[in-house]
Amino acid sequence: MPNPATSAAQPLAGVRIVEISSFVAAPLAGMTLAQLGADVIRVDPIGGAADYRRWPLTDDGESIYWTGLNKGKRSVTADLRAPAGQLLVTRLITDGSILLTNAAGRDWLDYDALTATRPDLIQLEILGRTDGSAAVDYTVNAATGFPLVTGPADHEGPINHVLPAWDLLCGVYAALAITAAVRHRDATGQGSRITLALEDIALATAGNLGFLTEAALCGRQRPRVGNAIYGQYGQHFTSADSICFMVVALTPRHFRDLTELTGSTAAVDALAADFTDEGTRYRHRDVLTGLFTPWFRERTAEEIGTALAKTSVLWERYRSFEELATDPRVTANPLFTLLRQPGIGEYLAPGSPISVNGAHIPARPAPRLGEHTESVLRDRLGLSTESIAALHMSSIVANEPPQRAAR
Amino acid sequence: MPNPATSAAQPLAGVRIVEISSFVAAPLAGMTLAQLGADVIRVDPIGGAADYRRWPLTDDGESIYWTGLNKGKRSVTADLRAPAGQLLVTRLITDGSILLTNAAGRDWLDYDALTATRPDLIQLEILGRTDGSAAVDYTVNAATGFPLVTGPADHEGPINHVLPAWDLLCGVYAALAITAAVRHRDATGQGSRITLALEDIALATAGNLGFLTEAALCGRQRPRVGNAIYGQYGQHFTSADSICFMVVALTPRHFRDLTELTGSTAAVDALAADFTDEGTRYRHRDVLTGLFTPWFRERTAEEIGTALAKTSVLWERYRSFEELATDPRVTANPLFTLLRQPGIGEYLAPGSPISVNGAHIPARPAPRLGEHTESVLRDRLGLSTESIAALHMSSIVANEPPQRAAR
Repeated sequence: MPNPATSAAQPLAGVRIVEISSFVAAPLAGMTLAQLGADVIRVDPIGGAADYRRWPLTDDGESIYWTGLNKGKRSVTADLRAPAGQLLVTRLITDGSILLTNAAGRDWLDYDALTATRPDLIQLEILGRTDGSAAVDYTVNAATGFPLVTGPADHEGPINHVLPAWDLLCGVYAALAITAAVRHRDATGQGSRITLALEDIALATAGNLGFLTEAALCGRQRPRVGNAIYGQYGQHFTSADSICFMVVALTPRHFRDLTELTGSTAAVDALAADFTDEGTRYRHRDVLTGLFTPWFRERTAEEIGTALAKTSVLWERYRSFEELATDPRVTANPLFTLLRQPGIGEYLAPGSPISVNGAHIPARPAPRLGEHTESVLRDRLGLSTESIAALHMSSIVANEPPQRAAR
Repeated sequence: MPNPATSAAQPLAGVRIVEISSFVAAPLAGMTLAQLGADVIRVDPIGGAADYRRWPLTDDGESIYWTGLNKGKRSVTADLRAPAGQLLVTRLITDGSILLTNAAGRDWLDYDALTATRPDLIQLEILGRTDGSAAVDYTVNAATGFPLVTGPADHEGPINHVLPAWDLLCGVYAALAITAAVRHRDATGQGSRITLALEDIALATAGNLGFLTEAALCGRQRPRVGNAIYGQYGQHFTSADSICFMVVALTPRHFRDLTELTGSTAAVDALAADFTDEGTRYRHRDVLTGLFTPWFRERTAEEIGTALAKTSVLWERYRSFEELATDPRVTANPLFTLLRQPGIGEYLAPGSPISVNGAHIPARPAPRLGEHTESVLRDRLGLSTESIAALHMSSIVANEPPQRAAR
């Protein structure tokens, strides 16, 4: 009987995954599965994939981004263009029996070929578009409708999100799809062939939230309304000392508290509208914001925070990444633990945001590129020391990161 | 032996979930689990939860939003303030053995109380913050750092995302956590108590992507750079006929193709920088954009699209929700099927974005509020027709949506 606490927190213990990936979605999927207890081996070409130098970088040019999205994995590097390298990797895949990749369309990773030796393979391919054509978060996002309704009402042109939201969603959907397929295989012995298109994630979401349906059925779409919330009352306000706050009144109680706090009750009553209805609060947003603004403008951020905390109103102070990094919600949050990351330094790193039986799985370091090549070939594929040395000599595999060019 | 195609696509068949929810994260989690084959019963107070009238609305005032996020579930309504209503719902929960909720802190949904009758319960609670205090996507987002670096470089003040990205991510993480816990229970018979804080999802993501780490280790953070991509070359351009395009060059090949297409090769070479390095492309983004802009400004959107399609460059035309709703990427996409949604109409609705063995699970209608109250009480809890009638008489349960007030 396994330790109950350990295994509830690591429900994918014993699951073995090979990840051939780059950028955000597939690496996040692999990291998320590793946080659930899976053994995830990220396989890269010697020297690293296209994301190995992605920003943000340290002052020494090491990728904070890469280590951030590959925590808790093992790393194997091989010459993925050489038949001998491909053969080794396909042996790793069929040994582990789960392949997670965004490297679609490579013959040697073909589902039919892999299932010839491993019929119960679970293969998950992340595509740009469902037809196999290339797309990335920033291009997918352009077609979704969101950038044209983001930002100030009087702004012309698109405003892209900074958060790569589609990549992130796609990554967690991928982890979900693999976990569900594992459950199916546990029960039936059958594998699954899964594809996820980044564009489909975005289209499904625009549909699920009703924005496409509103356009299709009503012949109109939601307008660009700045930081207001469509169909609700929410707005940002600025304090006397120039700090911004987001303030949201989702319920009649929130709204009543906000009008009382800002001394606007009589003026709001004089509008003679039914503000228990969220649509009414939205339609009157401009005059409401006008009524509430002086209260914020005449107070410091500290005064505002103290006063809002005594109400039911939903609110938050805007923070920069720099402010957030030293805020108690990071420094005193059990989600974050001190991580010593080779090549990067020591910092507070997030573990799994999923808390099971009261605890988060803490962050583990990302591997150095190629760190586990030798041990994986030996322990997984049973290769002898001599065979591994020969593969090194012929540059089919590599153990260490290459020298980085000075920049 | 179950039909292999059906069960790989429905790996959660036989899993029974009670969802007590509102807004985005928990309803999306439930819908996602239903798309994987789980039987999801959404339980609401009589008259609906706080999200029952959320925008977008049809011209008749019906919530497109609510039906969009509750597709494929069953609906039970009960008086959740009355002990008799609470008792019925706890019986449903212990019968199904999985509770998904964002209604944290209610005594009658206490984990210890529920596990007294159902020791293998899986309970997933979505919180605003990890300390149990309230927060919603819009307030969580304010603290993450993203709004202060979104939008035009010369903009002052925050720009919120329109996509409720944290809610969406939280919903898919929740579906993942439940699926993993089901696998653990299949193997060990043990339940799990899971919590997910919306704020933790956001903080973990800001950390995973490196933005917090950059601030913590390097004492600086990424700037606001408009629609440019931090650390890469990407920008939006406008055609002669005022259509915007997002254009991205992630690799040296993309970049070479973009310079050749726009006739900028000689001018780019004259900059005498190593543009095979993504950071160099980013640092020179303003002059590069200046060099590329005339080519776009002098061509129609159609000419631009035709020319870009012949290159490796990643690109997309910006579209409104209205344009997208009639675009072939929706109308000719197997992800979307015609859905007849009572109360809303007939429209193309997205199924599961996860394609298994070559097929998507198509969209199923959302229930009418309370539609399944009677059948669930009868079939799940074994209540007699007389008992159900008595519960109706005393307004402990309801079968039909209440009359909607004219608006």
